[in-house]
Amino acid sequence: MIRYNDRMELPDAVRIREVGPRDGFQNEPETIATEDKVRLVELLTSFVRADVIPQLADGREVLERAEIPEEVSVSVLVPNERGLDAALELRDRIDEVNLFLSASESHNRNNVNRSIAESLAGLERVLDRAREAGFRCEAVISTSFGCPYEGEVSPDRVFEIAARLQAAGAEEIGFGDTTGMANPAQVQAFFERAPAELPGVELTAHFHNTRGQGLANAFAALQAGCTSFESSFGELGGCPVPPGATGNVASEDLVSMFAEMRIDTGIDLAKLLAAASEAQRVLGRPLGSHTLVAGPVDWRR
Amino acid sequence: MIRYNDRMELPDAVRIREVGPRDGFQNEPETIATEDKVRLVELLTSFVRADVIPQLADGREVLERAEIPEEVSVSVLVPNERGLDAALELRDRIDEVNLFLSASESHNRNNVNRSIAESLAGLERVLDRAREAGFRCEAVISTSFGCPYEGEVSPDRVFEIAARLQAAGAEEIGFGDTTGMANPAQVQAFFERAPAELPGVELTAHFHNTRGQGLANAFAALQAGCTSFESSFGELGGCPVPPGATGNVASEDLVSMFAEMRIDTGIDLAKLLAAASEAQRVLGRPLGSHTLVAGPVDWRR
Repeated sequence: MIRYNDRMELPDAVRIREVGPRDGFQNEPETIATEDKVRLVELLTSFVRADVIPQLADGREVLERAEIPEEVSVSVLVPNERGLDAALELRDRIDEVNLFLSASESHNRNNVNRSIAESLAGLERVLDRAREAGFRCEAVISTSFGCPYEGEVSPDRVFEIAARLQAAGAEEIGFGDTTGMANPAQVQAFFERAPAELPGVELTAHFHNTRGQGLANAFAALQAGCTSFESSFGELGGCPVPPGATGNVASEDLVSMFAEMRIDTGIDLAKLLAAASEAQRVLGRPLGSHTLVAGPVDWRR
Repeated sequence: MIRYNDRMELPDAVRIREVGPRDGFQNEPETIATEDKVRLVELLTSFVRADVIPQLADGREVLERAEIPEEVSVSVLVPNERGLDAALELRDRIDEVNLFLSASESHNRNNVNRSIAESLAGLERVLDRAREAGFRCEAVISTSFGCPYEGEVSPDRVFEIAARLQAAGAEEIGFGDTTGMANPAQVQAFFERAPAELPGVELTAHFHNTRGQGLANAFAALQAGCTSFESSFGELGGCPVPPGATGNVASEDLVSMFAEMRIDTGIDLAKLLAAASEAQRVLGRPLGSHTLVAGPVDWRR
């Protein structure tokens, strides 16, 4: 085995949450039929260890109709208390809720029309009720590595917000590079510091491929010890600003990179590619994913 | 300055060779008019410190017509002794020659219909004459990180071939991930070992973005101390196998990543993006470059 660097200390395994149905479907210019969503969710959950998070106009119907194996952890995006009420109505179908706010005031204001303080107060109420209902809770902090309105975002501020969310009951904090402004040196420094700042909470990296650095940032986070990632099959979704820009890192590109480095993801790459291929067929246009075009590396040839 | 990781030991500056006119133009399905090539080369050489390497049917005419500033190092691809004869006819226009072979027998056979031993013997003759003529010489070893026919390629074999080329007079050795099979752990191990194996020669990383890992590999090489890279504006060219697969890492994505990490490339990103944009206009289709769509990160906002 000559490809693996034994001297480099990298984790043996990582956990990847599939956010395509959450971040992907809602950002598509095309309307995706509910039955297509159900089929794609079923395709994904037939093999993905990661969670699947439908939160859309027809999210409830998708959740009710899709046949999802028992062992798959289903999570939904809960923007506010009303969102939590909806999740509670499907309590037996949902394992986890995801909450979010931004690390920069302008982005938070632009996104949810609130100050960060107001968002935090609201999320604390949601976290309280969600925990009481037995949901596992993840809070995602958008623009953790840079804000399109304000520029630099201080890691001190990000860790401060994260500590508030952890104290309120979040068992996992995701750090989102919402508009693809992170670079690998910055990411590595951030994830090297994070465990000491936030002991006892699962730390998740959520990168976008806006400027092509998504996998470089994932590798940098991995080197710093991060073992939890979020990505989207077919490179669907994300924050398409400016128009045409790519969004989330493609799950299959991330899984392919980890597989080549012999890092276990628990995900069947061939089946993931089949799901991404089906998403491409449903959407009727070429997706941004690289491995979907090139195929995985076949070292046995 | 909060984005730069002061604890991480990264080089302060890197050197990037623009290979778009070499690797890019020849692989395009569209025919590019000579005058368009001349204009694109002039656009690139108006600001790029890196070298420009036209080697095509009309390469001679492009070289003769393009107005290239004195300080730009012009290099041409020289596949064999006949290629060197052609380069000698334009001796006053050319500073450097690039030679190549593959690290795997099957790929070399497939590419130039010779064994590696035969290629090496031929390149030694070319290097001898090229050095005598005063050309700076770079030798590129394709499939240094994996072969689509044979799978794994032993770094021992790559270093052995490189040492032969260095002994024959190559002042720079490029290591090409010709079909995008490299992963960052592998790349980091390779470039950590390379300086001890090949002391006194410039070591250059040439990555493709076939599976989206181009920048991750560049970051890994950088971490291992590599300061010399090759890339192609607009993500042009490379080895489009299978069809539709992306090729070389986009120069503007590479420069953007380095710029965000405050690593000097000597390249004006705005002008590079203008050149890539013009290439996109000439080719009449969207190119694979990310920064060309998203624009560079503007931290001052």
